[in-house]
Amino acid sequence: MIKICYIGGGSKNWARVFMGDLALEKGLGGEIALYDIDIYAANRNAKIGEFINKDERTISHFTYKVYDNLDMALLGANFVIISILPGTFKEMRSDVHAPEKYGIYQAVGDTVGPGGVLRAMRTVPIYEQFAKKISQICPDAWVINYTNPMSICTKALYDVFPNIKAFGCCHEVFHAQEFLTLVLKEQLGISATRKDIYTDASGINHFTWITSAKYKDIDLLKLIPPFMERFFEEGYFERGERFQFKTDPFAYGNKVKMDLFKKYGALAAAGDRHLVEFLPSSWYLKDPQMVKDWCYLLTTVDLREKMQKEQIEESEKLASGEKKFQLKSSGEEGVLIIKALLGMGDLITNVNMPNHGQMSQMPKGSIVETNCVFSNDHISPVYSKPLPLAVKNLVYQNLTNIDLTYEGIKQRDLNKIFLAFINQPLLSTLTQEESKNLFKEMCYNTKEYLAPFYDLDKFFG
Amino acid sequence: MIKICYIGGGSKNWARVFMGDLALEKGLGGEIALYDIDIYAANRNAKIGEFINKDERTISHFTYKVYDNLDMALLGANFVIISILPGTFKEMRSDVHAPEKYGIYQAVGDTVGPGGVLRAMRTVPIYEQFAKKISQICPDAWVINYTNPMSICTKALYDVFPNIKAFGCCHEVFHAQEFLTLVLKEQLGISATRKDIYTDASGINHFTWITSAKYKDIDLLKLIPPFMERFFEEGYFERGERFQFKTDPFAYGNKVKMDLFKKYGALAAAGDRHLVEFLPSSWYLKDPQMVKDWCYLLTTVDLREKMQKEQIEESEKLASGEKKFQLKSSGEEGVLIIKALLGMGDLITNVNMPNHGQMSQMPKGSIVETNCVFSNDHISPVYSKPLPLAVKNLVYQNLTNIDLTYEGIKQRDLNKIFLAFINQPLLSTLTQEESKNLFKEMCYNTKEYLAPFYDLDKFFG
Amino acid sequence: MIKICYIGGGSKNWARVFMGDLALEKGLGGEIALYDIDIYAANRNAKIGEFINKDERTISHFTYKVYDNLDMALLGANFVIISILPGTFKEMRSDVHAPEKYGIYQAVGDTVGPGGVLRAMRTVPIYEQFAKKISQICPDAWVINYTNPMSICTKALYDVFPNIKAFGCCHEVFHAQEFLTLVLKEQLGISATRKDIYTDASGINHFTWITSAKYKDIDLLKLIPPFMERFFEEGYFERGERFQFKTDPFAYGNKVKMDLFKKYGALAAAGDRHLVEFLPSSWYLKDPQMVKDWCYLLTTVDLREKMQKEQIEESEKLASGEKKFQLKSSGEEGVLIIKALLGMGDLITNVNMPNHGQMSQMPKGSIVETNCVFSNDHISPVYSKPLPLAVKNLVYQNLTNIDLTYEGIKQRDLNKIFLAFINQPLLSTLTQEESKNLFKEMCYNTKEYLAPFYDLDKFFG
Amino acid sequence: MIKICYIGGGSKNWARVFMGDLALEKGLGGEIALYDIDIYAANRNAKIGEFINKDERTISHFTYKVYDNLDMALLGANFVIISILPGTFKEMRSDVHAPEKYGIYQAVGDTVGPGGVLRAMRTVPIYEQFAKKISQICPDAWVINYTNPMSICTKALYDVFPNIKAFGCCHEVFHAQEFLTLVLKEQLGISATRKDIYTDASGINHFTWITSAKYKDIDLLKLIPPFMERFFEEGYFERGERFQFKTDPFAYGNKVKMDLFKKYGALAAAGDRHLVEFLPSSWYLKDPQMVKDWCYLLTTVDLREKMQKEQIEESEKLASGEKKFQLKSSGEEGVLIIKALLGMGDLITNVNMPNHGQMSQMPKGSIVETNCVFSNDHISPVYSKPLPLAVKNLVYQNLTNIDLTYEGIKQRDLNKIFLAFINQPLLSTLTQEESKNLFKEMCYNTKEYLAPFYDLDKFFG
Repeated sequence: MIKICYIGGGSKNWARVFMGDLALEKGLGGEIALYDIDIYAANRNAKIGEFINKDERTISHFTYKVYDNLDMALLGANFVIISILPGTFKEMRSDVHAPEKYGIYQAVGDTVGPGGVLRAMRTVPIYEQFAKKISQICPDAWVINYTNPMSICTKALYDVFPNIKAFGCCHEVFHAQEFLTLVLKEQLGISATRKDIYTDASGINHFTWITSAKYKDIDLLKLIPPFMERFFEEGYFERGERFQFKTDPFAYGNKVKMDLFKKYGALAAAGDRHLVEFLPSSWYLKDPQMVKDWCYLLTTVDLREKMQKEQIEESEKLASGEKKFQLKSSGEEGVLIIKALLGMGDLITNVNMPNHGQMSQMPKGSIVETNCVFSNDHISPVYSKPLPLAVKNLVYQNLTNIDLTYEGIKQRDLNKIFLAFINQPLLSTLTQEESKNLFKEMCYNTKEYLAPFYDLDKFFG
Repeated sequence: MIKICYIGGGSKNWARVFMGDLALEKGLGGEIALYDIDIYAANRNAKIGEFINKDERTISHFTYKVYDNLDMALLGANFVIISILPGTFKEMRSDVHAPEKYGIYQAVGDTVGPGGVLRAMRTVPIYEQFAKKISQICPDAWVINYTNPMSICTKALYDVFPNIKAFGCCHEVFHAQEFLTLVLKEQLGISATRKDIYTDASGINHFTWITSAKYKDIDLLKLIPPFMERFFEEGYFERGERFQFKTDPFAYGNKVKMDLFKKYGALAAAGDRHLVEFLPSSWYLKDPQMVKDWCYLLTTVDLREKMQKEQIEESEKLASGEKKFQLKSSGEEGVLIIKALLGMGDLITNVNMPNHGQMSQMPKGSIVETNCVFSNDHISPVYSKPLPLAVKNLVYQNLTNIDLTYEGIKQRDLNKIFLAFINQPLLSTLTQEESKNLFKEMCYNTKEYLAPFYDLDKFFG
Repeated sequence: MIKICYIGGGSKNWARVFMGDLALEKGLGGEIALYDIDIYAANRNAKIGEFINKDERTISHFTYKVYDNLDMALLGANFVIISILPGTFKEMRSDVHAPEKYGIYQAVGDTVGPGGVLRAMRTVPIYEQFAKKISQICPDAWVINYTNPMSICTKALYDVFPNIKAFGCCHEVFHAQEFLTLVLKEQLGISATRKDIYTDASGINHFTWITSAKYKDIDLLKLIPPFMERFFEEGYFERGERFQFKTDPFAYGNKVKMDLFKKYGALAAAGDRHLVEFLPSSWYLKDPQMVKDWCYLLTTVDLREKMQKEQIEESEKLASGEKKFQLKSSGEEGVLIIKALLGMGDLITNVNMPNHGQMSQMPKGSIVETNCVFSNDHISPVYSKPLPLAVKNLVYQNLTNIDLTYEGIKQRDLNKIFLAFINQPLLSTLTQEESKNLFKEMCYNTKEYLAPFYDLDKFFG
Repeated sequence: MIKICYIGGGSKNWARVFMGDLALEKGLGGEIALYDIDIYAANRNAKIGEFINKDERTISHFTYKVYDNLDMALLGANFVIISILPGTFKEMRSDVHAPEKYGIYQAVGDTVGPGGVLRAMRTVPIYEQFAKKISQICPDAWVINYTNPMSICTKALYDVFPNIKAFGCCHEVFHAQEFLTLVLKEQLGISATRKDIYTDASGINHFTWITSAKYKDIDLLKLIPPFMERFFEEGYFERGERFQFKTDPFAYGNKVKMDLFKKYGALAAAGDRHLVEFLPSSWYLKDPQMVKDWCYLLTTVDLREKMQKEQIEESEKLASGEKKFQLKSSGEEGVLIIKALLGMGDLITNVNMPNHGQMSQMPKGSIVETNCVFSNDHISPVYSKPLPLAVKNLVYQNLTNIDLTYEGIKQRDLNKIFLAFINQPLLSTLTQEESKNLFKEMCYNTKEYLAPFYDLDKFFG
């Protein structure tokens, strides 16, 4: 019998995925404490939870309880899931689209680049509160973060409460593993799942790199060059139709990934839409035409807004019983990790943690993503072999920018944040004046969330 | 279909244990190449292998082939097992018993202390040859070492051939895990196997320490103090009768382990007979009476000789078919590791490897024993949490002595080896003159094996 | 009596500066072995040396001897000075000006950026030979490097011959120290020399940073903000007339330095012309107008050629006696360092050395510039306090690019060099295709020097 | 005009040495604030100070002021000197002599070994108070520690107030340097002072090692073997008559130092009386006869008491004017360091500081003794080359014991302190029971100073 506190429990999609995964696992049970500033949405998910409990395929049953007070939600929690959206679509729109008039495009805009920095500025002060409350109310709970920017959120948790048992989960590496199974299929006709292959992935969230990959005695990285001869030109889409990316804004042709492999000899292990944001904008993001040439799309906030609307509509139907919830395993590993931490079998998977030495090339204490072993109430990072020097440079530059962003936010020092801002690879084409103007604009666009923490007028004068 | 080269394939006991384990695993097959300087013994084991192949319970069948040429045995090997005895009982007798006339007692004498140093002096030159041949003939083979002194043998392999894929296996930590299951049984009446509990063990071979241990939500280390109240006085024997240690020279009452736990708050994870050799002789090894008081026995070489005789007799019977080989799983993990390296499922277990940072308190490159993840053609050390400072001191002092012993042997520098010798905790009661005399005596006792490598007369004058 | 081997001894200017400095120091004497591929020029300097010997102000007299064989020049050397120009003005013209048609401007073009990379490609193979010869002929000699790119030349020396006693000298930090004395003079009316102030400077060559600076109990960095209020707008020229930079191509207004100080709170300790090359081109080097706005000039190769011609003419006059050599101390520290290494008093000054830990934020083994203590036959780096995170990021990114450049050159791997090339901050505005074209053009422009070492046709196809 | 706060200002000898040194330096002046729990003694020193001021040779004059309140003494201080004796001769007698009945002898008993541990237990709580007050009252003051145990006192200062500007000074290395000048004199007939030679010394206080030493182009360490042929047998006494050690309890024949050099190839850079305490007692301290054989004496507390009595008598005479104070430079470097920190010239000398990486083999943060550069308001450790492995082992073992002693004291954890106690090389011959009895006895002997901080009865039961 465990208590799982879900912060952001009004989530339009992710919460029910998680609830479904839990229901399908054996040997669990207890309470899911749903907390959200949108309490209506949390109640909606609780209702969906009740339908899940009634589903005959459900193996583990939980009590779904909605809290309007975070302290109460945390009290007695064994696990804390955090998955929030800091701000509204208005702020997201500024993060993603404001830079466009300066010629700066972003495919996602939530990790690094101008959007990532601004999103971090809004999110960290919230996370500081989370960490403080956890340290006081449930210091022994395991904390699983899903919010972006992943590295900075995880950093904030550890910085405020160094003994926190936290880590950040992300599925991007899984996609790269699936890409490798497709390479295997295309080149040798062998069908395998990502669980069947071994990969050594390390780096930072959304910018991890696979330096070795094996299926049985087959070196998968060696299959990529001949695979590229066939598919590089038009891209290779792991799901759906070729050219699907022209209509599906989350699709991409892995052409960026292949191009990086050609140059660097290692496989960047995240979706192309994420990868491009860690590199100079002139490489893959110069303008919409270049984006198209590299076979991916820029995800607009309009689209995100439309999608959310649809998800809410679906949630309403599920909560009212108008539509039946389809129980199925999502392939996400959150629930497997929980089981491992409860002592129900070891698990090795990649998560985001402070660097204790698992990446020997990166500074101690910075947040890195590597394999970790999950055991009974225990997580241990697995040492990952050094990255090739050229890859290390790319990763290090972004990682240390993230550290600087965090330091600036922690100290509420806008100048320091600005130094991290102008050092973003995505902004390297701007003059200092342009960068300053853009930063100012983005700060004032989202000042509702920033003004309580940063003295904007003093800095921008 | 794999080829496993077994160096020391004439082994009187261990080889058939391994052959039996292999036979009981699914999905394996190929050749076992038995190499030994005692070719008669290797042939005997090959014959036993044939009986195993005929056994109806055997799942995986191998060709057992004897080689009188190491190069040929290594050619094409996917795995190399090394398990040798450097020297004869004559040399072992000097290692173990020569120090006694100086008042220095040893329970095992094969790891550290005067016996460990001398044994290392004989073994390393042989291992240098192994490493050289492996680098030339089968550089991609996985090399599993079972020979003691474990740390120094593993060090030699990596030092001569830095890209070697080697590690050292030892079962001592398993015994400590079993001890914990017995504590669980005695205190709470819960039966569990060592696989059911999670432990974080790290240190150096025969001197690892468990700093956390959990069965489900039970902290096993917290059970030890009340357990000690019941069992400390008379000792607790994990197998057989109480006081068995009085007759079984490998038995021990875990009293040293409990005493160290009282002081250090961590569980030394090896048999008491090994542990005492890493500490000042005045603590647990002052004289035979003290040994008895701490509920363990000194293993004499007479006894070892007698046991080997019996094993040979048994081997003869097994080889001739006079006696039937009893197929059963040994609980050793060697075969499981091989399967994991072949891509047949991940495995986490403790082995000896160069420190890449998995033990952040120890020097990089020294051989440490920690958990590692075995995957398809891949081994990754798992980061182990820092040892308590007092434990770290004990471990570090021994580890760095081992490094100095190795450096001296590598350079064939008897003075440097002597500096490692006098710095052994077991010898700290001797005057410098006594140490020098003892070292001289032990070197000349075993000069048959040392003279080809070290200029004894020049150093001892 | 010492022997100093001067590689590049035909130097048009620097050799005679050094010879003059030597002549004015007490307690020295021996042989100056001049070696140069331009033996005529070396002979010219030897003749100048004879005039120096005859000068009545000369304190220490040396024999000036010209060698046409490097081995002979090195034989018996106690010191080796290396100061060469790899290639001719033709190659330099390509380094500096070829990128301009891609909109990439360089003020110096010999350290990092496209010019720095190409110059390194020409220079390292020569330095590999130097290191090899030194290891064989005079392994105990102290080697002082003056050639750019400084970091990579020093790296090559240590990489080929790890026990070399080498370091790289550069006077750029001295200029920043002089700038600080001018700030002191302007703000408080106090006159001081750079020897009177204490500074903590660390970083990489041409991109070191001063994080603390004191004159008596005055914190000099605190004087900079009010100083900037007076001088930022129009720049501050340390020598000569205001606006001198418009005509003197080596002059600069320290405006970049002041701007960086405003942002980073630390003083970049090199001339502005160097500093701008370590930063995105959009910051200070976007186009000639921006250069002018920041009060410095781009040094053209035409100008360098003209200057060299004048220097040669002067050398001819000095060598023939038509003009008298003006003996005076140059302010360079090379000769003081030599005296310290000869045991004639300790000296603390900044030089370039492999990182042993003196910069704790930088990788071990990379070449860094920090204070070092020079003593009798001994050099010890001084630990320098950590740089502010934002500064560390800038320095690290360039340092690790340099390491990648070196690794590529060492391995003659044009793809790896290209990865370092496209990661140059100066090139971050170029598309990948533009970078590739530029790299190709620059390689073929200088192929006379590259083709013996790199397979250009294979890489560029 | 500076203020120097002297804690322990009633010192019977050292304070007036320091006052004399100050008086003879140019360019100083201000106030000496004398603070001592023995205010009478502080007043006596103030009176001596007035005589110094009147002395015609005095160059710098100071106001000598006695404080009975430490806060007031610290207020406005630029420098804080700490030189105290924690406890009385009664406690010192226990530290030094109590272990003798267990067969454990000590020559000094104030650094490591049983005496060092007990002394640390008394001293650290006092130093915690000093550090706290300094952090509140004069956080920018430079703090110079002279109290033993040096490493632990310095550690306490930094641990309580991490930004403290503190270091520990000790003259033992100077003696080793003087020993080297005598070797030079004896072997080559060359006279030199310790300032004329260069040495690379590193380690921990009273156990530093010189790994290279040069006078001009002469390698001094190479002179030691022939020197030993002449002097090893009877010892070499640097001051006074041969065999002086038989009567002068501070004299010693450097025979231990020479013996260690024979074995380790490096020169232990402290007096033999200190060195022996870092090594197993069986090596040089087994019994009084062995002490005599190694040509040094055990300093008794009776003698120390007698000497202090004489110093007090002399102080009384000096303070009353009955005897004239003889102004002369002591050769100690305290005053030179103060001048360097005031910006009056750089100074390189060995002091005790937290390890930032200056000793790459030792843990970061532990207190190590290496060369440091003193400049204007600045101290920078100088990187010291790695110790030979065998020497590193000896140093590391003692350093990490010191860290454990400190951790135990900080946490007031008698068990942890006891673990450090039994790990002292000097106690390695004792059984655990003997060690426990000895520790108990020493704690209760000095309980007047320990009981306020440690719960003795609870631990010893």
